[in-house]
Amino acid sequence: MAIRLGIFGYGNLGKGIETALNANKDMELKYVFTRRDPNTLSLKNKAAEVISANDVFNYQSQIDILILCGGSATDLPEQTPKLARCFNVIDSFDTHARIPEHFANVDVAARQTRHLALISAGWDPGMFSLMRLYGNAILPQGTDYTFWGKGVSQGHSDAIRRVEGVSDARQYTCPVESALEAVRSGKDPVLTTRQKHTRLCYVVLKEGADKNLVEQQIKNMPNYFADYDTTVNFISQEELERDHMKLPHGGFVIRSGVTGDNNHHVIEYSLKLDSNPEFTASVILAYARAVSRLHCEHVYGCKTVFDIAPSYLSPLSHEEIIKTML
Amino acid sequence: MAIRLGIFGYGNLGKGIETALNANKDMELKYVFTRRDPNTLSLKNKAAEVISANDVFNYQSQIDILILCGGSATDLPEQTPKLARCFNVIDSFDTHARIPEHFANVDVAARQTRHLALISAGWDPGMFSLMRLYGNAILPQGTDYTFWGKGVSQGHSDAIRRVEGVSDARQYTCPVESALEAVRSGKDPVLTTRQKHTRLCYVVLKEGADKNLVEQQIKNMPNYFADYDTTVNFISQEELERDHMKLPHGGFVIRSGVTGDNNHHVIEYSLKLDSNPEFTASVILAYARAVSRLHCEHVYGCKTVFDIAPSYLSPLSHEEIIKTML
Repeated sequence: MAIRLGIFGYGNLGKGIETALNANKDMELKYVFTRRDPNTLSLKNKAAEVISANDVFNYQSQIDILILCGGSATDLPEQTPKLARCFNVIDSFDTHARIPEHFANVDVAARQTRHLALISAGWDPGMFSLMRLYGNAILPQGTDYTFWGKGVSQGHSDAIRRVEGVSDARQYTCPVESALEAVRSGKDPVLTTRQKHTRLCYVVLKEGADKNLVEQQIKNMPNYFADYDTTVNFISQEELERDHMKLPHGGFVIRSGVTGDNNHHVIEYSLKLDSNPEFTASVILAYARAVSRLHCEHVYGCKTVFDIAPSYLSPLSHEEIIKTML
Repeated sequence: MAIRLGIFGYGNLGKGIETALNANKDMELKYVFTRRDPNTLSLKNKAAEVISANDVFNYQSQIDILILCGGSATDLPEQTPKLARCFNVIDSFDTHARIPEHFANVDVAARQTRHLALISAGWDPGMFSLMRLYGNAILPQGTDYTFWGKGVSQGHSDAIRRVEGVSDARQYTCPVESALEAVRSGKDPVLTTRQKHTRLCYVVLKEGADKNLVEQQIKNMPNYFADYDTTVNFISQEELERDHMKLPHGGFVIRSGVTGDNNHHVIEYSLKLDSNPEFTASVILAYARAVSRLHCEHVYGCKTVFDIAPSYLSPLSHEEIIKTML
């Protein structure tokens, strides 16, 4: 029987889940829950129903896993513990510094009601976290490096849009190729923020706005841009819509370490993604399969990608994965 | 209390385990078991004892995990099931086609006596297998690629040494850079054996041997070389010993897939290793930690890397890994 899914929140990630589901024949989308007026949403998947988020608790018996697609700033810290009392849930909570607190809250909620929750699924946190763990366990004497990009940072794009005189913007985070090469060569360089990434901005100005002033305001913005080498390109709205509407992303996790008599080893994991939300959704769906199976084995509480044996992610039988992939 | 280890077989891998143990403070080498005369072996680790392989069954209560370092052709198919009756064991069995049979034999043996065995740990099978599984689970619509090298293949080096007129040899397997680039670009090429790897040989001739004849015999050797573009370089014994005594290796696992409206994603995992045996040993030790912990949780039978939740590999607590790596 197919795993019955609900999507809670129909933004970029929610739509990505709907799309990525086409490749996962053992799962079925039953409901999309939205805070908007359900009549205003039109799904690509015509077999699924749109329901008001307020009514979600009426659907407990119709859903095996609820996938939470809200934001990490304010939605998930409240939604995940609340919904984990009534559903098996997965989220992609990505505020790294607040993960321990979020884990604790979700664990209590899920455990009390014998549900299973998995938090922080995606690629970072998610696959990149796994690679950091594997790398550290295999090469205890070594150094970790994470680079992001080239890809669109929605937070940085939003920050530019808040600058006076800006009508629209897209920001790409770019890894510095020479820094990557130095890491790959096993030189174990110590790298500053500026040495690891550059920021590339495409900005559409409002009529009459002062180019130089806007550029200076972006480049000097604390936290977001001041610590980076930033390039600002001014383009037209048409150019932005033609060339910058996709949400590509990716990055690199590198573990560089030594064993014995100065034998050097470099482990590198990299992602090149045309669509950040569709790839994140694809990771989440593999973990939804694992959550569904583990809950059948009476596993409860909060888990992370670290706690899931890889075999649970595959739709194939244990015999098949040993035969075809080991 | 430290995890007490035994090494069974003291060749390249056994020595690699001894070396890699220096970086793992929660483990302790107690015994090395050898089929040779124990008096002829001198360990780097002076706290460990060398014991005859015949006496291994007298040491059941002194060892938490026995690491089996024999060969896959004849040693491990016999040794792993036999030793799994009395010890928790790990091996690096790497004859891919025979893994299902080996798994079944070891599973019966270990389960009957409530021991835990993990087979086929290392990097391929091992980390590369994990990457194939993760890649397939995340991107169900896609193609797998595995490339090996640049690295020394001991099987191919041995095959060259068996050619008449050859006194010594080293063979490097090399990935074809243009094939790698085509895969990375998302073109999903269909590649023949010849298009993926080349074979680079360094050969020391016996006095009076015929260069051309030796070169033709190598290049036309079925299974080993005939399906590849092979380069044969003749060098002196001194050059071989100066430049080719290390055992570097590595490779690439790439999953190239699509989601939605032709959005392409490329996941790449690569290893660049100065010492194949020391890296393989490092992977085995991380899994030894997992085996020790899981046996304490009353997990028995045969497992593979697919069955081990990543958190069991790390010496850090669950709280620490969530805080520092997620």
